[in-house]
Amino acid sequence: MREPLVDRASAWFRALQDRICAALEALDGRARFREDRWARDGGGGGVTRVLEEGDLFEKAGVNWSDVQGELPGGLPFRATGVSLVLHPRSPMVPTVHANFRCLDKGGARGFGGVADLTPTYPWREDVVHFHHTFRQVCDRYDPACYPRFKQACDAYFFLPHRGETRGVGGIFFDEVGGDAAELERAFAFVRDAGDAILAAYLPIAERRRGEPWGEREREFQLWRRGRYVEFNLLYDRGTAFGLETRGRTESILMSLPPLVRWVYDHQPASGSREAELREWLKPTEWLG
Amino acid sequence: MREPLVDRASAWFRALQDRICAALEALDGRARFREDRWARDGGGGGVTRVLEEGDLFEKAGVNWSDVQGELPGGLPFRATGVSLVLHPRSPMVPTVHANFRCLDKGGARGFGGVADLTPTYPWREDVVHFHHTFRQVCDRYDPACYPRFKQACDAYFFLPHRGETRGVGGIFFDEVGGDAAELERAFAFVRDAGDAILAAYLPIAERRRGEPWGEREREFQLWRRGRYVEFNLLYDRGTAFGLETRGRTESILMSLPPLVRWVYDHQPASGSREAELREWLKPTEWLG
Repeated sequence: MREPLVDRASAWFRALQDRICAALEALDGRARFREDRWARDGGGGGVTRVLEEGDLFEKAGVNWSDVQGELPGGLPFRATGVSLVLHPRSPMVPTVHANFRCLDKGGARGFGGVADLTPTYPWREDVVHFHHTFRQVCDRYDPACYPRFKQACDAYFFLPHRGETRGVGGIFFDEVGGDAAELERAFAFVRDAGDAILAAYLPIAERRRGEPWGEREREFQLWRRGRYVEFNLLYDRGTAFGLETRGRTESILMSLPPLVRWVYDHQPASGSREAELREWLKPTEWLG
Repeated sequence: MREPLVDRASAWFRALQDRICAALEALDGRARFREDRWARDGGGGGVTRVLEEGDLFEKAGVNWSDVQGELPGGLPFRATGVSLVLHPRSPMVPTVHANFRCLDKGGARGFGGVADLTPTYPWREDVVHFHHTFRQVCDRYDPACYPRFKQACDAYFFLPHRGETRGVGGIFFDEVGGDAAELERAFAFVRDAGDAILAAYLPIAERRRGEPWGEREREFQLWRRGRYVEFNLLYDRGTAFGLETRGRTESILMSLPPLVRWVYDHQPASGSREAELREWLKPTEWLG
């Protein structure tokens, strides 16, 4: 007999965390993940892995969790998933974020996920590769879903007070499921999407880690990271939900960049490569 | 005939901004404030002054504003006030924040304000001096109000996800006023409190700026500044109100520290001076 869906999803996410961490350690080549296992007062727990001060990654966090309890209205819930945020040291290598999850709210189950890219210096071919990878995953599931998931991603990762997106988007989906057969299809899609994160990101990191950069590029990166912090603390629903439900603070906030600078009313010089980024921070059709 | 109260308050706040900036430039001795005058689409505007990369101050912001419009429910409002956030370069000199304001909501007027201190390395005499200065101001107004305003400050500047206060508190009050005579008394109190910020802070900055510090203290300061960012973006009502009502983003977020570090699950070494700070980050009766 098959295990219940949420148990299978939880186990699959746990194994995905292992595969991702192994690949990232191999890619980094220097630093290793430290692991913290934690239990949640309300039920369940997780495994947080963080790598700091690596050769490629200044900070990389990969979380797995499987928690349960009661929602504010009293409805029992169980949520399991994996999430990652990678902050490279080189401003030439983009920051990436992804999470894939399965949620059961009083028996109503569904899958959700997101994968989005935040370059400091943009190369069009990198952005196209990232989107293309996930469009292929979407197309195998339902050719109608990439445009929808891409648009949802642009809408979600938007900073209204800055009038710009957090990065160049990706895919965002929520509560994908339905009856038993649809849930199985959704789970298959999430497995495909979860496996795609390495294929989407590793080639970009590999081809950009050797690009030269200096103090100017580093300063721009630290300043851009401020916007990442602003989004995560002001708008991110996962961060707010985690803190409100008294999740493990250090696991939730591992998403914050390691070093960040705020400069009053800073404007990159007109015509510079830094100013050009601004044009990328709006919903864009990357795939022609 | 006297000008209406809110006009007088606005002019007084504007003059306070001038006095504070002049005193801070003299104290810093190197950098000068740059000034940005801005108009708000909905009505009114302000003057933002920021000093960066000074000798004493890594970043100092002093805002004045006088804005009007309609609240979400349609009620006309006018708000005027001055706010400041000072981030010294030396970890031995505390960060300080204050704001004093007058609010008219559909004819219901009142004064509000706050002054609070956030040391990186704590000296008890500094904290006592800061609280003592504002207790004297409170006592001249109403001896019952210091304990109340101090408690409100501790309650407001609290980070539930960290289980700690932002700093060592100060005073916090809101909607102080009543009939015409009470409003005049409240205005006199706010003038007294506004003038006290320099008396409360300058002696501390002067006696600590010469204290030696190095890389270890700087790293601790950058890490502690992360908590300041977390509070301002996650919980500060003024920041949320400003961003929601489409205030000038750079004026609102000038409160953020210049350089900040997040380190996963960092714990200062047990018994260290850095670990000792934790004991200060809870509501404490500083004045015996």
